[in-house]
Amino acid sequence: MFNAVLCRYHEIAIKGNNRREFERQLVGNMRFMFKKQEAFCKVHHIRGRIWVEPAEPGRDFTGPELQKVCDVLSRVFGLESYSPAKLVKPDMETIMQAVREVAPPIFAPYLEKGEKAVFRIRARRSNKEFPLRSKEIEIELAGLVETLFGGENLKIDLDHAPITIGCEVREEFAAVFAGSYPAPGGLPVGSSGKVLVLLSGGIDSPAAAYEMMKRGCQVDFLAFHSPPYTPPESSDKVRRLAEQLNRYQYPGKLYFCNLAPLQKEIRDLCEERDRTVLYRRAMFRIAEKVAHKAKSGALVTGEAVGQVASQTLKNMATIGSAVDMLILRPLCGYDKNECIRVAQKIGTYPISIIPAPDSCTVFAPASPATSVPIHVAEREEAKIAGYTDWIEKLAAETLTSVE
Amino acid sequence: MFNAVLCRYHEIAIKGNNRREFERQLVGNMRFMFKKQEAFCKVHHIRGRIWVEPAEPGRDFTGPELQKVCDVLSRVFGLESYSPAKLVKPDMETIMQAVREVAPPIFAPYLEKGEKAVFRIRARRSNKEFPLRSKEIEIELAGLVETLFGGENLKIDLDHAPITIGCEVREEFAAVFAGSYPAPGGLPVGSSGKVLVLLSGGIDSPAAAYEMMKRGCQVDFLAFHSPPYTPPESSDKVRRLAEQLNRYQYPGKLYFCNLAPLQKEIRDLCEERDRTVLYRRAMFRIAEKVAHKAKSGALVTGEAVGQVASQTLKNMATIGSAVDMLILRPLCGYDKNECIRVAQKIGTYPISIIPAPDSCTVFAPASPATSVPIHVAEREEAKIAGYTDWIEKLAAETLTSVE
Repeated sequence: MFNAVLCRYHEIAIKGNNRREFERQLVGNMRFMFKKQEAFCKVHHIRGRIWVEPAEPGRDFTGPELQKVCDVLSRVFGLESYSPAKLVKPDMETIMQAVREVAPPIFAPYLEKGEKAVFRIRARRSNKEFPLRSKEIEIELAGLVETLFGGENLKIDLDHAPITIGCEVREEFAAVFAGSYPAPGGLPVGSSGKVLVLLSGGIDSPAAAYEMMKRGCQVDFLAFHSPPYTPPESSDKVRRLAEQLNRYQYPGKLYFCNLAPLQKEIRDLCEERDRTVLYRRAMFRIAEKVAHKAKSGALVTGEAVGQVASQTLKNMATIGSAVDMLILRPLCGYDKNECIRVAQKIGTYPISIIPAPDSCTVFAPASPATSVPIHVAEREEAKIAGYTDWIEKLAAETLTSVE
Repeated sequence: MFNAVLCRYHEIAIKGNNRREFERQLVGNMRFMFKKQEAFCKVHHIRGRIWVEPAEPGRDFTGPELQKVCDVLSRVFGLESYSPAKLVKPDMETIMQAVREVAPPIFAPYLEKGEKAVFRIRARRSNKEFPLRSKEIEIELAGLVETLFGGENLKIDLDHAPITIGCEVREEFAAVFAGSYPAPGGLPVGSSGKVLVLLSGGIDSPAAAYEMMKRGCQVDFLAFHSPPYTPPESSDKVRRLAEQLNRYQYPGKLYFCNLAPLQKEIRDLCEERDRTVLYRRAMFRIAEKVAHKAKSGALVTGEAVGQVASQTLKNMATIGSAVDMLILRPLCGYDKNECIRVAQKIGTYPISIIPAPDSCTVFAPASPATSVPIHVAEREEAKIAGYTDWIEKLAAETLTSVE
């Protein structure tokens, strides 16, 4: 029944001068994501309208194909919504034929229950050669719908109708569609540059990665593990999380850093209660070096103020002060249940809740300090001979670990 | 009908050792917020349960009183939900009498329409001396409800009932209630320390302030204006925004900084396209000095990646690098419509959309640079004689401006 899916974008449209660049990025991202699937469809882009058609023109999508297209579009940042549609020649008789085809399955559920079907028609004419104005198209199509289903079974409601039949008349085609589905919004991945996400096996950091992709950031991942103190399952879990997140973008790299050798130094030489902060300062330092090499413009963490001992304002400041690079903490104002909601939406939650220790829990102190001043952290780090060399060495090893 | 409102908290309960401290902060905040109203009610706190009663015991809340109590509770961070309730002696006959009083107005809307009222009973007994177990209380009360309204008009649904009659039996009292209302969640304001929010007249920065209050931060505000290039209305607008936000906390201070003198220097001496970044670096520097004096642990901004020219990763990095202090950007992963949704929820949106120029728009360049490297910003700042003195001077003036 549907031979196309119309795509809508929102924020991009208000970008003024940059609009063309954003559209280019968006369409490029869509083409890449469809090519990863079997390439049975084609992305078109003419004068601000983006739509998807079967690769061989002149036929409808099969049901499973349409489902695949919608699945992909639901993961394209920059799109606001999409609508399966029937594209036809832009003349009124053909448009009415398309409505005869598209409307029945939409009205059926109401009519079969004996309820009145509440509907509206929304027409838009960008082709000014077309003989009818938008309003006239709407009146014409509303009349057709009444003929089809009987006026006594129908009610028009322009504001809150559960059924909307859309009609868009352009020069290239006319499109008839019913209803639209939400896409994730935001900006096309890549349009805002590249960031490096510190990815743990927890619930928060994958959600943080998603929020930054939504704002147009292409994401690489850096995971810390501590073999033999963390099991291989911990790394597998992170791998699965990165894979799940890469479904939303041109796949980012996953770097691994074995932090155990430095953690042993910290365990042996530094105050027990400061360990977590010292671990995290080392992680940030290594991440900064990796990010520079990988041309990332910022580090991203899943930190939320007040969630755990290392996420007090004081400890976040002490940890962040270890690096000069921009640090983005998109969840810093989130409650735990808000983090969980994002993780559930993007499918990382079921992976994250599999129990597995991570680097932060290795030699973890019984009662970690909630307020480590910068000078204390620096004093503790000074106890480790060749601390800077350690960071250099671990960063260099990390850079060769890329998956 | 109701002589109390039961309050529930969530995240606090999982805070282990710190639970008591959080409860203390939460109850203290509630008492403060009620005292700002006429003090017709009292906050009680016994063994992990918090509730509100009329100041003179032994009577019910009037309708308007109850509305005021609920209005306050809907602004208390740290609370998850609340329920108007009837507190009675913990014996079964009195509890049933309370149900006879509480239930009818809840069931009436369904019964009057001739619909079946779908309900459930939820009982909890923390008083182990009470002769009935929770399950037995539920059975007893369900029986009472059937007697009251007729079994043929009712249906029990344990999972999705729109009507829930709750009963909590403690040593101090038994509480009967119907339904609960959402509170804003998060952590009690003050439990995470203090932050300084850079407050403009826009939509985003008030939303950022709210998100940080939600994570337990007590918020002070710093606003920049540029008289005579910005009108007095701009400052009035910011004042109203701060007032609106202060309804959620022990009122924070509002500082004003007149940035115009330094902006004139920047206009006269520096590259036009770099102006916005240079303004913002100056704002951050002044903010850092004010924050130190005000004992704030972080600066908070309403920045969202990719939203405007000054919010590219590159420019955010260049702006942030001007200070050493922790910077939190709770909206960095938000779409514009997500910012708007928060602003609407907290009532700042109608104030923010009143048109009024702000400091950022004074002498604004026609086409601002989207990528100002740090060394370029430093080079431009070096053109201003006594730049550091300017910052010191403006910060000192700001500190005496407090409202």
